[in-house]
Amino acid sequence: MLEAIASANEGHAIAYGDDPWTRRVEGLFRDLFGDVTTLLTFNGTGANVLALATLLGPTDAVVCTQESHIAVDEAGASERLLGTKLIDLPSVDGKLHPDQLDEVAQLIGNIHHVQPSVVSLTQCTELGTVYTPDEMAAICDRAHRHGMKVHVDGARLANATAALGGDAAALRSFTVDAGVDVLTFGGTKNGMLGGEAVVHLRPELARRALYLRKQLTQLPSKMRFVSAQFIAMFNDDLWLRLAGHANAMAQELYAATAELPAVKHLDPPAVNGLFPVLVPEVIQPLRDWSFFWDWDLARDQVRWMTAWDTSTEDVEAFAAGVRASMET
Amino acid sequence: MLEAIASANEGHAIAYGDDPWTRRVEGLFRDLFGDVTTLLTFNGTGANVLALATLLGPTDAVVCTQESHIAVDEAGASERLLGTKLIDLPSVDGKLHPDQLDEVAQLIGNIHHVQPSVVSLTQCTELGTVYTPDEMAAICDRAHRHGMKVHVDGARLANATAALGGDAAALRSFTVDAGVDVLTFGGTKNGMLGGEAVVHLRPELARRALYLRKQLTQLPSKMRFVSAQFIAMFNDDLWLRLAGHANAMAQELYAATAELPAVKHLDPPAVNGLFPVLVPEVIQPLRDWSFFWDWDLARDQVRWMTAWDTSTEDVEAFAAGVRASMET
Amino acid sequence: MLEAIASANEGHAIAYGDDPWTRRVEGLFRDLFGDVTTLLTFNGTGANVLALATLLGPTDAVVCTQESHIAVDEAGASERLLGTKLIDLPSVDGKLHPDQLDEVAQLIGNIHHVQPSVVSLTQCTELGTVYTPDEMAAICDRAHRHGMKVHVDGARLANATAALGGDAAALRSFTVDAGVDVLTFGGTKNGMLGGEAVVHLRPELARRALYLRKQLTQLPSKMRFVSAQFIAMFNDDLWLRLAGHANAMAQELYAATAELPAVKHLDPPAVNGLFPVLVPEVIQPLRDWSFFWDWDLARDQVRWMTAWDTSTEDVEAFAAGVRASMET
Amino acid sequence: MLEAIASANEGHAIAYGDDPWTRRVEGLFRDLFGDVTTLLTFNGTGANVLALATLLGPTDAVVCTQESHIAVDEAGASERLLGTKLIDLPSVDGKLHPDQLDEVAQLIGNIHHVQPSVVSLTQCTELGTVYTPDEMAAICDRAHRHGMKVHVDGARLANATAALGGDAAALRSFTVDAGVDVLTFGGTKNGMLGGEAVVHLRPELARRALYLRKQLTQLPSKMRFVSAQFIAMFNDDLWLRLAGHANAMAQELYAATAELPAVKHLDPPAVNGLFPVLVPEVIQPLRDWSFFWDWDLARDQVRWMTAWDTSTEDVEAFAAGVRASMET
Repeated sequence: MLEAIASANEGHAIAYGDDPWTRRVEGLFRDLFGDVTTLLTFNGTGANVLALATLLGPTDAVVCTQESHIAVDEAGASERLLGTKLIDLPSVDGKLHPDQLDEVAQLIGNIHHVQPSVVSLTQCTELGTVYTPDEMAAICDRAHRHGMKVHVDGARLANATAALGGDAAALRSFTVDAGVDVLTFGGTKNGMLGGEAVVHLRPELARRALYLRKQLTQLPSKMRFVSAQFIAMFNDDLWLRLAGHANAMAQELYAATAELPAVKHLDPPAVNGLFPVLVPEVIQPLRDWSFFWDWDLARDQVRWMTAWDTSTEDVEAFAAGVRASMET
Repeated sequence: MLEAIASANEGHAIAYGDDPWTRRVEGLFRDLFGDVTTLLTFNGTGANVLALATLLGPTDAVVCTQESHIAVDEAGASERLLGTKLIDLPSVDGKLHPDQLDEVAQLIGNIHHVQPSVVSLTQCTELGTVYTPDEMAAICDRAHRHGMKVHVDGARLANATAALGGDAAALRSFTVDAGVDVLTFGGTKNGMLGGEAVVHLRPELARRALYLRKQLTQLPSKMRFVSAQFIAMFNDDLWLRLAGHANAMAQELYAATAELPAVKHLDPPAVNGLFPVLVPEVIQPLRDWSFFWDWDLARDQVRWMTAWDTSTEDVEAFAAGVRASMET
Repeated sequence: MLEAIASANEGHAIAYGDDPWTRRVEGLFRDLFGDVTTLLTFNGTGANVLALATLLGPTDAVVCTQESHIAVDEAGASERLLGTKLIDLPSVDGKLHPDQLDEVAQLIGNIHHVQPSVVSLTQCTELGTVYTPDEMAAICDRAHRHGMKVHVDGARLANATAALGGDAAALRSFTVDAGVDVLTFGGTKNGMLGGEAVVHLRPELARRALYLRKQLTQLPSKMRFVSAQFIAMFNDDLWLRLAGHANAMAQELYAATAELPAVKHLDPPAVNGLFPVLVPEVIQPLRDWSFFWDWDLARDQVRWMTAWDTSTEDVEAFAAGVRASMET
Repeated sequence: MLEAIASANEGHAIAYGDDPWTRRVEGLFRDLFGDVTTLLTFNGTGANVLALATLLGPTDAVVCTQESHIAVDEAGASERLLGTKLIDLPSVDGKLHPDQLDEVAQLIGNIHHVQPSVVSLTQCTELGTVYTPDEMAAICDRAHRHGMKVHVDGARLANATAALGGDAAALRSFTVDAGVDVLTFGGTKNGMLGGEAVVHLRPELARRALYLRKQLTQLPSKMRFVSAQFIAMFNDDLWLRLAGHANAMAQELYAATAELPAVKHLDPPAVNGLFPVLVPEVIQPLRDWSFFWDWDLARDQVRWMTAWDTSTEDVEAFAAGVRASMET
């Protein structure tokens, strides 16, 4: 990444994205997805807000799960910056299901209610599950039948792609082929210093996107430094190798801790996150030693994430730490 | 009401509330509640939005039920006009319970989440139930311990008052005495041509309220016509007599339909709303004959409301209509 | 007006505008303007905000004068409720001129700037002037060439109509015939207890208007009481007679004060407002005796308005008051 | 800068600013300004919006010049994201003057108007001028007398500091000593890859700032890469040397072009921007050869900026380009 940035640091370049690195990134995204429009942003919250902004009229609402990042972890950005309501539906596995859209669709046409017009899905989900291509196609189809558009929060799209086949065809199978309208493509969680992309798979929806990016404070003036990182990512499929590695490390961590009595795993990980339930006494000493987030306080459930730079040694050291914390 | 308006129509008056009728109304609300600030508005959605606007900073959120009017029936006004998130919690009886606030309070201090800072209760609730004074005091106490303020949507506050004792002391018992910070006081649903009041029981919270009312498009230029209606309402406790009558009519309607096989009542009405489950075939012909709203489509549940001007004859005619629709 | 309201008070009616009075009003507006969509609202600020909301996308801006009511006297409602920028241009006579649009149009296509997409004109203007039909047509034409739509704030549209011919043809000449896209039609300032109309002269622009009216807190639940007032207004051209009377009273007030040394009139009034410059010592005692607003403090300019119910006696009394205040 | 980033790339770090690099930067800003609160952001628009968000209540407005970046070049971010009105006043030299605040202060207390509560100044201004410490103190004092707070947009604060003395004492003289409440401290325009700081000189105003930064999409998850750049900037006063260099290059460019007949300079540059009026035929060929922005189309005025990395050779080449374009 640093080399990539250094290579973009030579000579002058016109600001705000009118530079050869950004042109190149746009081409790389077209290679992946076909005729799409790509806008780079600083971070994931910004990318989601921008993507949604292009889809929403006033009085429109977004349908999502109660666990979705946009509903829970973005400090109310969608409500404040977009003025929209998030209709957050319950889910057991982090996924929305097509029948839930039928229920919400009953609001359509009633002037006393917001109008559900965008479905937002997270791939892979906040609960570490992955929509299959068929599931994704089914929910896109149902959404479109109700006149709704589909947004995918892809902060960890690379991990999902790695889990579903690990190549461009796999990526297309659950995005453009499935009927997704716009997605965000995460870079930061997959090893970039910082940068995300908003990709309109239906470019006609991006009509106001350039203006909105500026207004929503997400226009990088020296965009080439974000672009250069994406170029490095797509070089020789680095993005897929990093994500595949993170996923593999989660499997190792699962294996190394599955037998420990203090740890109750729900399922083997589909991607790079585990959500074990721990013996309560273990949680705090373990976290003091190596930070992780709570997931569900009431159930003593925590979230362990592996990353592009997690090593087998890291996994072994962490598993040893879990065993040690059990002994204290 | 018309006479009241006519009486306010004589001579000239200064616009925007600087008139003797409005001064009088402010005094009448002080007679009811003590040292409070009162602002008149056009309608209930406007009153709720104004009341909430005075309580909310940016990044603040409102805690309410999933059935609450502000969350469901105001077309996303709070999200759009205030930029706030509504954290809408499940309820079985339309009421929030203190323990639910403890759970939400876990968000406090985490910069990734909106900060729950206002609890919004509806009295009587959207499900036709009524918070007792003790229940109201308990939830206000819990809210305040978490640093949250309490808003009451009182579009039908008169019906609740009638149900809980029917005098000013009853009203105070579940509002100012219970610790409510701001409430709306409904007029339109209780026989006024149009008009609501926002009453800050803690006047220091109303510091920006006059400016906000104008900005939120809820400043009536000829305010005296709203004021005159409230004066008439408070004259000789008309507001309580009208609400008590509406409640009584609901009891009559319950009695007149409780035995019908096509109608399954859940509970006798606490105020002026019934939520029966009907035999499906009956619903549409009955509604064609006399309009009412669906409540829960999936369960064939509807909502029947009685009003200040419902008569015993109306009830009997409607009950006869139900019987007739069963025969077709 | 009261009789009209009383006539709407008989029997029950379905709420939120699905009533015969409102249907009738919609028909009366079609009689005036042709194939238009009409939405009733509570007040003028609400009507303007609603009208603009139907025209604006995100990143769009409104072009208006620095004196315009939406920019100065609505407490920032457009900025807060719509999130839009008002590009407020200088004017000498309260009017925008076509060439000013050319200058603003240079922002179009630049992603760093808001996109001017709506021109808002006030007829009659805040300075008491009146756009002629030709002036209105010229600015509409220029706006449309730049891809901008035209909104007219018609809080006192009746006074303008009275001044420009006093019949429906006159009204059409400077609105629908001139190319205006949406206008507000004021009732409150012309004798109604309260009520305004938003009229989309191009109905396709009203697609989201019903939802927006609810969200913007401007949906009267007992709409028939607003409708009944409009019906009375259109009966036997009452609206034109009232506005014509107000205009005539302004002429009388001008004549009665033109010769007074303490009063310097700029121009004879075009409609029902005078903007005299007064001898400074006169202002406060005169206002204590009969309230009026300042206009330009720095110049000792005030605003005197006549109304539908101003009488010749009122004018004479006020002129006597001016003379008296000069003597003190 | 790249070395600085690379040094922050070793080992793991907790995200969202809880890392040693960010702690260090916060200390460096305290060394500069005293007891202040510092928040890093991605870009200048984001920094301004965040700073203003901490100062504004609903119905508040910001006073600024008609040329100010927040009013013109941020695509309406303040209006949309903050819901605020920008009261943009005319200026001849890019500066606000204290008396202009007196005029605006007449709006205070009138419920029909937004309430001017923040004054936003740009240092150095968009017109390339610099507020002296005395000027800054005078306007802060006047603002505070009217109950307004003072924000400084310091995207090019380094250039102003270099022009006013070139050390920390100079910086303090026109900021914290002059009474400024909050400022943004630019990094991107002074050689950083990307990053700005919001510095609350009165930390009590930053109470909600951490939440607002997240909500406004300006919280960098890998903040250490922004922090490391600031650390490098403050090392050995690099920031002042770079800004001083840019200012010096502007002087050279002025000298190299002052005598050319096609170029009419208004004043020698105070910092790193020149605003010459060019012979019209020269503009387009010159821009095709080396990009620059228009400033005032009507006057054929353009803006030439020098930067931290402009060299004497660049200046000479550009001056030669100007001469060449005159010959064609």
